[in-house]
Amino acid sequence: MNPQANSLHIPDTQSERDERHLAIQRVGVKDVRYPLTLKVAGAVQSTAARWSLDVALPAEQKGTHMSRFVAWLDAQQEPMDAARLNTELAAMLEKLHADEGRIEARFSFFLRKRAPVSGLESLLDYQGAWIAERRQGQTVIWAEVGVPVKSLCPCSKEISDYGAHNQRSLVTIRVAFKDPVAGAMEWHELVRFAEESASSEIWPMLKRADEKWVTERAYENPKFVEDLVRDVALRLNAEPRIGRYRVDVENFESIHNHSAWARIERD
Amino acid sequence: MNPQANSLHIPDTQSERDERHLAIQRVGVKDVRYPLTLKVAGAVQSTAARWSLDVALPAEQKGTHMSRFVAWLDAQQEPMDAARLNTELAAMLEKLHADEGRIEARFSFFLRKRAPVSGLESLLDYQGAWIAERRQGQTVIWAEVGVPVKSLCPCSKEISDYGAHNQRSLVTIRVAFKDPVAGAMEWHELVRFAEESASSEIWPMLKRADEKWVTERAYENPKFVEDLVRDVALRLNAEPRIGRYRVDVENFESIHNHSAWARIERD
Amino acid sequence: MNPQANSLHIPDTQSERDERHLAIQRVGVKDVRYPLTLKVAGAVQSTAARWSLDVALPAEQKGTHMSRFVAWLDAQQEPMDAARLNTELAAMLEKLHADEGRIEARFSFFLRKRAPVSGLESLLDYQGAWIAERRQGQTVIWAEVGVPVKSLCPCSKEISDYGAHNQRSLVTIRVAFKDPVAGAMEWHELVRFAEESASSEIWPMLKRADEKWVTERAYENPKFVEDLVRDVALRLNAEPRIGRYRVDVENFESIHNHSAWARIERD
Amino acid sequence: MNPQANSLHIPDTQSERDERHLAIQRVGVKDVRYPLTLKVAGAVQSTAARWSLDVALPAEQKGTHMSRFVAWLDAQQEPMDAARLNTELAAMLEKLHADEGRIEARFSFFLRKRAPVSGLESLLDYQGAWIAERRQGQTVIWAEVGVPVKSLCPCSKEISDYGAHNQRSLVTIRVAFKDPVAGAMEWHELVRFAEESASSEIWPMLKRADEKWVTERAYENPKFVEDLVRDVALRLNAEPRIGRYRVDVENFESIHNHSAWARIERD
Repeated sequence: MNPQANSLHIPDTQSERDERHLAIQRVGVKDVRYPLTLKVAGAVQSTAARWSLDVALPAEQKGTHMSRFVAWLDAQQEPMDAARLNTELAAMLEKLHADEGRIEARFSFFLRKRAPVSGLESLLDYQGAWIAERRQGQTVIWAEVGVPVKSLCPCSKEISDYGAHNQRSLVTIRVAFKDPVAGAMEWHELVRFAEESASSEIWPMLKRADEKWVTERAYENPKFVEDLVRDVALRLNAEPRIGRYRVDVENFESIHNHSAWARIERD
Repeated sequence: MNPQANSLHIPDTQSERDERHLAIQRVGVKDVRYPLTLKVAGAVQSTAARWSLDVALPAEQKGTHMSRFVAWLDAQQEPMDAARLNTELAAMLEKLHADEGRIEARFSFFLRKRAPVSGLESLLDYQGAWIAERRQGQTVIWAEVGVPVKSLCPCSKEISDYGAHNQRSLVTIRVAFKDPVAGAMEWHELVRFAEESASSEIWPMLKRADEKWVTERAYENPKFVEDLVRDVALRLNAEPRIGRYRVDVENFESIHNHSAWARIERD
Repeated sequence: MNPQANSLHIPDTQSERDERHLAIQRVGVKDVRYPLTLKVAGAVQSTAARWSLDVALPAEQKGTHMSRFVAWLDAQQEPMDAARLNTELAAMLEKLHADEGRIEARFSFFLRKRAPVSGLESLLDYQGAWIAERRQGQTVIWAEVGVPVKSLCPCSKEISDYGAHNQRSLVTIRVAFKDPVAGAMEWHELVRFAEESASSEIWPMLKRADEKWVTERAYENPKFVEDLVRDVALRLNAEPRIGRYRVDVENFESIHNHSAWARIERD
Repeated sequence: MNPQANSLHIPDTQSERDERHLAIQRVGVKDVRYPLTLKVAGAVQSTAARWSLDVALPAEQKGTHMSRFVAWLDAQQEPMDAARLNTELAAMLEKLHADEGRIEARFSFFLRKRAPVSGLESLLDYQGAWIAERRQGQTVIWAEVGVPVKSLCPCSKEISDYGAHNQRSLVTIRVAFKDPVAGAMEWHELVRFAEESASSEIWPMLKRADEKWVTERAYENPKFVEDLVRDVALRLNAEPRIGRYRVDVENFESIHNHSAWARIERD
């Protein structure tokens, strides 16, 4: 693979023996920007992802081989899904001669949405992540979505003669699939857990009739940060394909300069 | 100052002559974290600021002396205000043997606020900046504040049967003082331009009676991003101590995943 | 286009007359994530860009029509280049009934590079931006690239018995094309201005023989931040297709916790 | 405390009973900027910290009382240390009627350092954090430091005829104190674990004689990211006051546009 290097007899410092008797749980590359393709709602989307890849290093080994992570990245040509991630994590570990390791990719993706009254279409952006981790012989594949929604405060509505404070919220759902090969979910399914739990979902393009709809819908449907996180968790509890999960909700409060925030986690 | 270096005859590469015939408008240090003290509402506040310092370098000079910027920073012990900044910019330029240059410091500061009904007190954080720039024999001293407020949409209010979408907004005001020595303004005065122009000002700590007040106040006082930027500009126009200015308003829209934004600038 | 809204007689608050006699130089949408396709080195790349779109608003007009910006975005299907940007800015201004306005899109793109000795290929990421602005009847189209490179300090090399401190640098080049329709440049051409001026260019994947090459190349080719910014400027001065430009170089100093930074600008 | 609210008979929606049978592990406020004072090397430093405060909420309770977190924050007037944090976490939980909860504060602090040859003094900035967490009747107090240092690559040094690539690194050490009341450590002690393990420590202000020292010191003392993380872990293992810990090292590689990264964790 690198005959020229060999012919020069360039020393391989990383392969030497280490005498500190300290294993390293995770070592690798961080924040590598590399392309990622994924399937969203039946079509292939291509984007620039931020990747972090690492492996466990035994106590006696001095260093890992960093360039192999990039070689692995460069070989990813097909759209990434849970089943492929499962296979490719194994391939990465083999390439690095490692028993344990982790892949994380963070990216934006888009869903085409129709405004609720005008029916006009536009693309809403979501934050997505794939995380694949192998520890003690077990592999877990996580999918994560960050979904922007609208929340309206029940207390503010109840105590005020008119109006109610509301704001943008970010719902972040991270789920592990019980069966990543046969039982993974689609990105738009994960997104709907959040959008259906919010005071209202949101859109990039709204005409006045749509804006009226969203305003009234949110007012009819007030949610504390605690309500929103619980309503998402209830939906996740009802979904048999999901094992462990974690839901975070952050409300960028319009009456404060800080966020209200809540988390429910199921192990 | 550095006799040891001299006695070692360490070559001074930066002081050599450059033959490319290209002046550099700005060269220096960027994102240095260093303490800053400032006077806010009569009391001294101490914080960690992010500083960027640079000077113009003539075509024949190879390099500037970077360590002198840090020496200048380390000498700043007194609370910084516009008059001192004016003097200290001159001192920095002299230290660097430069005719033109620029100082920028970015930091957080706090104002103690009383909630509108309960009267409970808490500290709201604002983003501040000092910018001092000397070009072609003229020095300008800018003060900048970033003020979080609440905006409520007039269109949403008018077209909806109940409620109105609202959100946190950030108003950024940058003003140059006509006379930085005798006619500078206080931080809390700049903040009030923004807070008085918003649908409502905001507080870190609100009891229910306060929350009702803020909710209703915003509903009674709807503002587009265009209204907010214009109302701030009207106030700045009425203030004789201010010369050039720039106002930015960013609404973190609660019905979209993007911001509405506007700017008015006076030269 | 929006008959339902019309049939409901929803009031159009934004179209009312404003009485504050204050024009707004820029108003629009900020940080909208929307797809962007562009041609890089002969192939089409698709990515998620961060867009900011705004127009000038005359004093007598109360508000702009925010949803039209998103409609414009949604209509961008073809790969964006300077000529198209020129046309599409005009289309956006017409849609918004505006005389002046601005389009900015920020994104990552990739170039396939061959390591200098092993010849192994990998993709390096660059930050790109398109900026199109129309003011007082003149349109200017800017392209911007952010290019990561390596810089090695000439002073450190000269004064030290062995070694020399070096670090990652970011070279940001923004150029206006004299003729955006017939005389635009390719992304890889802009990138080369930076890579050829650095102590060494960099790669995502390097084998040991490559690492030796990069290390020695940088050591043979030391550059202050002032040298690097000047060497890029010299190359830009020699390129007839470029009008105005601005070059920033930031060295993430390995001997400090701050950056050395320089800028040359040509109007 | 809020008699006005009571006299208005404002409904208290958050105190209602919740019927979803879902406990919330963490709910509270996030990213509140509030002042923090701390003792560093014997003197008091005052800064603006970013706080996140949360508590566990039982299944039957509808919501927490967000304003009490800010009231708790406003009451913190004394310099924060591990013993005080231990007490104040208990006070916060009592105020919120909660059994479990968490306090996190992130901030910058400074240490005055003498350059190695010239002896000139300047302030280096570090990132600090306090984390206090109570779960299942146990309280843990963590201190975290982010220390910028210099790393030089052993492989690059060995294979190259001259020079060696080096870069800024960030070492992040998080330790739990076995006895937070009697056995906490000082900030500068935690910092030294990182600075003594690096190829070289760094300074904000260096004269040429110092720069020569740092350059040669790093060249004599090459470290892979694996070496650096192990050498810090060895030092932590030798310190009896520390219980659990986590060390992260990130090298902002000067030959790539991504980081090399490693972590050792002890439970």
